[in-house]
Amino acid sequence: MNETTRSRLAPAARAQAIAELAATFGNRLVTSQPVRQQHGNTTTWIVSEPPDAVIYPQSSAEVQQIVQICARHFVPIIPFGAGTSFEGHVNAPFGGVSIDLKDMNQVLEVHAEDFDCVVQPGITRKRLNEHLRDQGLFFPVDPGADASLGGMASTRASGTTAVRYGTMKDNVLALVVVLASGEVMTTSRRARKSSAGYDLTRLIVGAEGTLGVITEMTLKLHAIPEAISAGVCAFPSVQAACGAAIAAIQVGIPVARVELLDEVQIRSFNAYSKLSMPETPMLFLEFHGSDASVAEQAECFGEVARDYDGSSFQWATSLEERTRLWQARHDVFWANSSFRLGARTVATDVCVPISRLAECVTETKRDIEASGLVAPIVGHAGDGNFHASVLVMMEDADEVARTQAFIERIAERALAMEGTCTGEHGIGQGKKHFLEAEHGSSAIEAMRAIKNALDPNGIMNPGKIV
Amino acid sequence: MNETTRSRLAPAARAQAIAELAATFGNRLVTSQPVRQQHGNTTTWIVSEPPDAVIYPQSSAEVQQIVQICARHFVPIIPFGAGTSFEGHVNAPFGGVSIDLKDMNQVLEVHAEDFDCVVQPGITRKRLNEHLRDQGLFFPVDPGADASLGGMASTRASGTTAVRYGTMKDNVLALVVVLASGEVMTTSRRARKSSAGYDLTRLIVGAEGTLGVITEMTLKLHAIPEAISAGVCAFPSVQAACGAAIAAIQVGIPVARVELLDEVQIRSFNAYSKLSMPETPMLFLEFHGSDASVAEQAECFGEVARDYDGSSFQWATSLEERTRLWQARHDVFWANSSFRLGARTVATDVCVPISRLAECVTETKRDIEASGLVAPIVGHAGDGNFHASVLVMMEDADEVARTQAFIERIAERALAMEGTCTGEHGIGQGKKHFLEAEHGSSAIEAMRAIKNALDPNGIMNPGKIV
Repeated sequence: MNETTRSRLAPAARAQAIAELAATFGNRLVTSQPVRQQHGNTTTWIVSEPPDAVIYPQSSAEVQQIVQICARHFVPIIPFGAGTSFEGHVNAPFGGVSIDLKDMNQVLEVHAEDFDCVVQPGITRKRLNEHLRDQGLFFPVDPGADASLGGMASTRASGTTAVRYGTMKDNVLALVVVLASGEVMTTSRRARKSSAGYDLTRLIVGAEGTLGVITEMTLKLHAIPEAISAGVCAFPSVQAACGAAIAAIQVGIPVARVELLDEVQIRSFNAYSKLSMPETPMLFLEFHGSDASVAEQAECFGEVARDYDGSSFQWATSLEERTRLWQARHDVFWANSSFRLGARTVATDVCVPISRLAECVTETKRDIEASGLVAPIVGHAGDGNFHASVLVMMEDADEVARTQAFIERIAERALAMEGTCTGEHGIGQGKKHFLEAEHGSSAIEAMRAIKNALDPNGIMNPGKIV
Repeated sequence: MNETTRSRLAPAARAQAIAELAATFGNRLVTSQPVRQQHGNTTTWIVSEPPDAVIYPQSSAEVQQIVQICARHFVPIIPFGAGTSFEGHVNAPFGGVSIDLKDMNQVLEVHAEDFDCVVQPGITRKRLNEHLRDQGLFFPVDPGADASLGGMASTRASGTTAVRYGTMKDNVLALVVVLASGEVMTTSRRARKSSAGYDLTRLIVGAEGTLGVITEMTLKLHAIPEAISAGVCAFPSVQAACGAAIAAIQVGIPVARVELLDEVQIRSFNAYSKLSMPETPMLFLEFHGSDASVAEQAECFGEVARDYDGSSFQWATSLEERTRLWQARHDVFWANSSFRLGARTVATDVCVPISRLAECVTETKRDIEASGLVAPIVGHAGDGNFHASVLVMMEDADEVARTQAFIERIAERALAMEGTCTGEHGIGQGKKHFLEAEHGSSAIEAMRAIKNALDPNGIMNPGKIV
């Protein structure tokens, strides 16, 4: 018998589990409609499926207690971070208990000499970086939103700096995880590398809470660079901008960020952030290093850009200018949300080998136009990863259908170019049907076998990934 | 019933499988004593357990055929690369068939713009880099030995350049794997990153052939740096040398290699490579970048070294000098083998947080002396990883016993310092008994559950890791 079906069929078991949780956790177990609603539907356009209850643990031991109670009654568990994911990760299609980790937000240890720290999963990346700043250290992964570190690990998040510093898979050293059995597992030690057994850390990173609940994380840190410089460069076409980005990497410029924005995105951007950028494809760049190295990188990029008919490079060397620039870049989601009044932003992402990026973006832009949609594009050009943010009037059924069809096509297009249906947002509910096309049936069978081995009753975030 | 036991108890099944393989593969199935012996015991001191037969496939389809025949008869499969591993990975404690992948050594595709290539697992890292050189690209992971890429992935190898370029887990993009079921699985696409489902790539990397046989690999490549410079610096103590290495990283010098050699290693090194280095702890460094950046890095390191009483930095800027230096570093295994005539080199490795490296190396040196052993030390100082190469007279039972006890203590010492019992050599047979102490019982149970899920009959390299 399928156990998630069993739990769906057993509301009595869910009520019993919730009663037991309430007895232990008192008012930290909440069943009110608004709170449940908040924990189902967040930044996704996928229909909301709220949990039966939301619970706020304060320690790994409490999470373990919650999991043990839920496991005994075959009740689903949905880990919840900051709610900034896009693919329905925090929905509760089979009911169950949302574990909101916001109160587990402490920095437990900072080992400055070892460039690592130990944190609880509910801390957000901005708060972590505020905490670290005085020690000259930072955590580089930056998905834009002020996501929780636990959520970032679970969706294998990356963002603007991945081209230089890698994604969450590269920046998590070890995890403490409460498994479906109620046991607590430590995935690795604090050494920077290890060849000791299966890589359980990387198995949990990107598992979207379907294999366990992360309750503690050891993260790699980096030294805040001596110098940071940033700038923008306009190009006559998406091809030219992508060409310059690839060439910059090819000649070995260690770019820290290289973001592509299409002319539609620049329009939205200008409107929201009160800027007056030329409405043409642009690259936003950031260089990290010593003063001399940053200057050299910028000069070298200037030469590359000229080969691709780029405008002269506009510098933002002061902290204020730089902050304004990247704040604007980070506000893309909000800029887009107000770019078409009354529209919902449906953010989708794909990633292709960088040699195919220009082609994939160009075809996608043609598709957007042919579909009669409004969808600015931003891309992490150094990774071949880009987002189309479709601005949809949700009450227009035809436009919703066209958006859905567009999202299908963009994923299929990426897959046809040896790419992935999601570079950094994850599978969740929204992209489950692409998984087999992407990986093939043997890989999906292997994923299912792993899921069944670690969560035989299917209580960990059921209905996501596999 | 334990299936590996079943296969041990069923020599008839093994004979039947071998007969079927011989019928299909003709003289590419070898059962001669010398060839079997070669495939059991290689560079390890662990007692040789040769396979029943060795087979040389030429394609993924042939590997699949071999696995299907073996699976039908519950006969163990041991993947074999270049035989340079240290922990008994290629031994056949339950008999079975060694799959020697040396004929699967082709570079199938190079995507220069995407900085990746597709290779067969039998290619060695030197041959791959020869192939890539003309295109200005290289594969950075360098464990010293001219290992096969498949073996390097399977042991999660790293080596001298990991401090800058990461380990095999960071440089494998995707794998094709023949599973125990005989099915062929592709773990990922060619995109540089993905959030689509469980990270099967990282699960196979480091699995030491216990979850399947790698038959194709997509690898990340890097641009050959415009400039490379290298040099050596002598220090009064291991503490000083480690301190300088940590400080160099702390101030943000992007060192490409930073190798620690103790005074015993320098003696061995001088004798073998006809050099005349001062017999005191040294750091060997390499810097990659533009001409200007390399010069800046070196200057910056010079300042750091002075703070730790380092000698003035001796440069090897010419290709010849550099090659000689790193050749000597890479010949450490051979240097040690001839440093004590008639001795066997028993290489063991551990890895600790870098803040504990000096302490761990110092205690280990004291232990070596107290144990009356000869054991030069080399370390990848930027990762906190080091090797003690015990030079043992195998016919001296007491010395063998002292070596075994020393190996136990070095692993326990690393574990006590939040480190790992192996940074890059792997678990194999030699370090199985440390796995639970390192990871705890829940993690080991999870590893076993994964192993059982993907290889229920235990035919994939049985007796290793779990």
